[in-house]
Amino acid sequence: MPDRNLSLLTDLYELTMMQGYFNNAAYTNTGDRVCVFDMFFRENPHGNGYSIFAGLEQLIEYVTNLRFGEEELAYLDSLGLFTEDFLKYLKTFRFTGDIMSMREGSVMFPYEPIVRVTAPLMEAQVIESALLNIINHQSLIATKAARVCAAAEGQPVMEFGLRRALGPDSATLGARAAVIGGCIGTSNVLTGKMFDVPVKGTHAHSWIMSFPDELTAFRAYAESFPKDIILLVDTYDTLKSGVPNAITVFNEMLDSGNPPNTMGIRLDSGDLAFLSKSARKMLDDAGLQKVAIAASNDLDENLIQSLKIQGAEITVWGVGTHLITSRGQSSFGGVYKLAAESRGGGFVPKIKVSDNPAKITTPGVKKLYRIIDKETNKIKADYITLDHEMPDMSNDLEIFDPQNTWKRMTLEAGRYDAVPMLVPVVQSGKCVYASPPVMQMRAFCAEQKTMLWDEYTRLTNPAKMPVDLSDELYALKQKMLHDARNV
Amino acid sequence: MPDRNLSLLTDLYELTMMQGYFNNAAYTNTGDRVCVFDMFFRENPHGNGYSIFAGLEQLIEYVTNLRFGEEELAYLDSLGLFTEDFLKYLKTFRFTGDIMSMREGSVMFPYEPIVRVTAPLMEAQVIESALLNIINHQSLIATKAARVCAAAEGQPVMEFGLRRALGPDSATLGARAAVIGGCIGTSNVLTGKMFDVPVKGTHAHSWIMSFPDELTAFRAYAESFPKDIILLVDTYDTLKSGVPNAITVFNEMLDSGNPPNTMGIRLDSGDLAFLSKSARKMLDDAGLQKVAIAASNDLDENLIQSLKIQGAEITVWGVGTHLITSRGQSSFGGVYKLAAESRGGGFVPKIKVSDNPAKITTPGVKKLYRIIDKETNKIKADYITLDHEMPDMSNDLEIFDPQNTWKRMTLEAGRYDAVPMLVPVVQSGKCVYASPPVMQMRAFCAEQKTMLWDEYTRLTNPAKMPVDLSDELYALKQKMLHDARNV
Repeated sequence: MPDRNLSLLTDLYELTMMQGYFNNAAYTNTGDRVCVFDMFFRENPHGNGYSIFAGLEQLIEYVTNLRFGEEELAYLDSLGLFTEDFLKYLKTFRFTGDIMSMREGSVMFPYEPIVRVTAPLMEAQVIESALLNIINHQSLIATKAARVCAAAEGQPVMEFGLRRALGPDSATLGARAAVIGGCIGTSNVLTGKMFDVPVKGTHAHSWIMSFPDELTAFRAYAESFPKDIILLVDTYDTLKSGVPNAITVFNEMLDSGNPPNTMGIRLDSGDLAFLSKSARKMLDDAGLQKVAIAASNDLDENLIQSLKIQGAEITVWGVGTHLITSRGQSSFGGVYKLAAESRGGGFVPKIKVSDNPAKITTPGVKKLYRIIDKETNKIKADYITLDHEMPDMSNDLEIFDPQNTWKRMTLEAGRYDAVPMLVPVVQSGKCVYASPPVMQMRAFCAEQKTMLWDEYTRLTNPAKMPVDLSDELYALKQKMLHDARNV
Repeated sequence: MPDRNLSLLTDLYELTMMQGYFNNAAYTNTGDRVCVFDMFFRENPHGNGYSIFAGLEQLIEYVTNLRFGEEELAYLDSLGLFTEDFLKYLKTFRFTGDIMSMREGSVMFPYEPIVRVTAPLMEAQVIESALLNIINHQSLIATKAARVCAAAEGQPVMEFGLRRALGPDSATLGARAAVIGGCIGTSNVLTGKMFDVPVKGTHAHSWIMSFPDELTAFRAYAESFPKDIILLVDTYDTLKSGVPNAITVFNEMLDSGNPPNTMGIRLDSGDLAFLSKSARKMLDDAGLQKVAIAASNDLDENLIQSLKIQGAEITVWGVGTHLITSRGQSSFGGVYKLAAESRGGGFVPKIKVSDNPAKITTPGVKKLYRIIDKETNKIKADYITLDHEMPDMSNDLEIFDPQNTWKRMTLEAGRYDAVPMLVPVVQSGKCVYASPPVMQMRAFCAEQKTMLWDEYTRLTNPAKMPVDLSDELYALKQKMLHDARNV
């Protein structure tokens, strides 16, 4: 992505508003008004109990490389909407603000700030569309991957969705996100190269059909790839031809004096429960207990769970279309809202009021803390405070549900840690955060998920993690809501 | 896309199979065996009566720019899967084959060839994943756009989905496809620049909130963009504040001596039927009959249809999330299957047999004709033949449903044209087709859609277009199926 000029990856209205602010500096104090915007979301996709944050590395690249080049300016000029002065301003435009963010792979919950942008109004505004595009996409796929991997109960899941993804980025960045969310690798070679994640794959039915017969095709494949071999056994007849031929070839490989590291078969059609159980028995009877059984064919978390309930003997899962397009919920609803703006040396909190309570924003410059039980290392709640607050966990702390304030709990003194979840990633327009390798993000995500009690990880109707506001923040929000209604 | 090296945008197994073919030239005649692959699909998305073909321009760019550079080869080498000889072969690899394809914007139906690739086996194989990725993505979105535009019954539909798309390409190429399918433009500025399509947009709620009051914000916007103005009226109270303030500003603009070309209001929340009818009345009462009413907020074809049934007074539709991610069916199931291979100077047809009749392929090197009624200019049927056949429409032609052969119809002599639908786009690896501008593709698509009788364009449970096989092709398929089963 750094090689592509994404400065125009924005909704036109971001630019027309910039032009408008540029023209109305008197009202809008464009020159020196600094705004704070929060990205947050309102609902976990697929009814999940949590979401996974992903896409930060690409967001940082986008923001720190944001330049309007000659071509971009010429195009904007051709639209007849922008003044010469404004285009001149764009020519030297840079993002000069600060960004705090969750780390990729973090578990996150609705209504908490996941990215916080502090920048002059026009800079904060123009990055909105691309910021949301990047984070919404990867967080959606990472979350879907977490669900699929949860259904697989620790068995490896491979991402296979390239051919059904929504364009090259959807495939390539989607596979990246899928690995962060829990997949062990992808079939997409470009993702492997760009992000140093394992790439996997074997052969297609067309390979088998290119040889005089299946056994010859298997042998030829084994000869080319003697170390790790997975044979696709369903081209002609899985149990009558595919598995017996695979057994023949595995035995030949084992007898060769140069046995492979891993062996497996892959099922890509038919009833995966029946076929996997039958194939397992045939393999075991042949003394090939170590041969893996991989399955693919329109899998998602529900089908994996259903196959497992039926005792399917599948050990590796290949998930394509349904993961890379997040079937069932094909978008992540992250939004980006004004939370505060500078006035006379400080920040004035801003709120968006709506008849729909779900659409009311939480005002102010905020921090997010994760309350972690020191003994179990499990998440007790998330806790949003104003920027200057720091929860004192050495004293009892009473927290409460901001929607149902009678739902209260006391965090006993000394039992919990309050861990800040937003870290500085961009300061004065410069990247100050080294994104770890994707496989480290994946490990971090795996660890994050272990911090959730089972009731939050159930795929259907999980418990809702408390995301509470500090007393001060709650009082501010209530006051601003009442003030807005009493104008 | 031409600037990005997409050679590794492929599933690993395409490369491992290439290595295998490279190692097994004796069996596979890799050097000189030429294969014919068809792309086709089995089902229209969303239960539609047709689909729209899109993505060809990007496919041609990909295929004709396919090069494995130093970086790509170094990465492949690092995987430890490929031989030095093979990597050397990849270094000078070029796609040297031929591609025939539908034109972008064409109406297409299940089970007909939409792209036909004729190339040496390894070349035809390695492009599979990217070819499917590109065509599946854009055809999905173009088809969804056609549905949304059908629901809008000729009223303009704008594409607004950037922030919820699955990454930058999903937004940018998706908006391109949406325009081909019928949208009049997009909010995505990058799509506007790349493909010369209209970009549209006005302002967000944050614009209004940046000014002391709504009227001041409207006036400031009108001053900056006096020619075409759409005011977002739902920031505070649509009917009590937004519409009256908009009326004030429109009247001021009309009185200014420099009246705007277009004026409109935009509704982005609340009950769009009620609000649009109330706003229409207020605008009409103020003599502003020409002011457009644009609406957005989680729209799709079903909601648009439902709003229209209720008499909503909306004249312009902004469709975001549900279009750009094709909610309801988030992938297009195009596949790429071997149809024939060269043997001794000619082509031998190939078939893939399956217990599932839907998965059986149609063998042979094929052409696709569209049978068009000369009088009405409507599509009567699509007709697949072998490459050497040319339907003689000056005689009666009896065609039949290949699944239900008792469903027959006679095309009377002289009444129909048989128009070839696949045109040469790549020959010997060189592009031989000039992609028209996207707005021309859009016009072509609009014309294509007028060739469908209403029964095929109904959004729910439409009629199924006959896609028939020539007698010779049908006989070949039946013979090969029987032969395969009698081995």
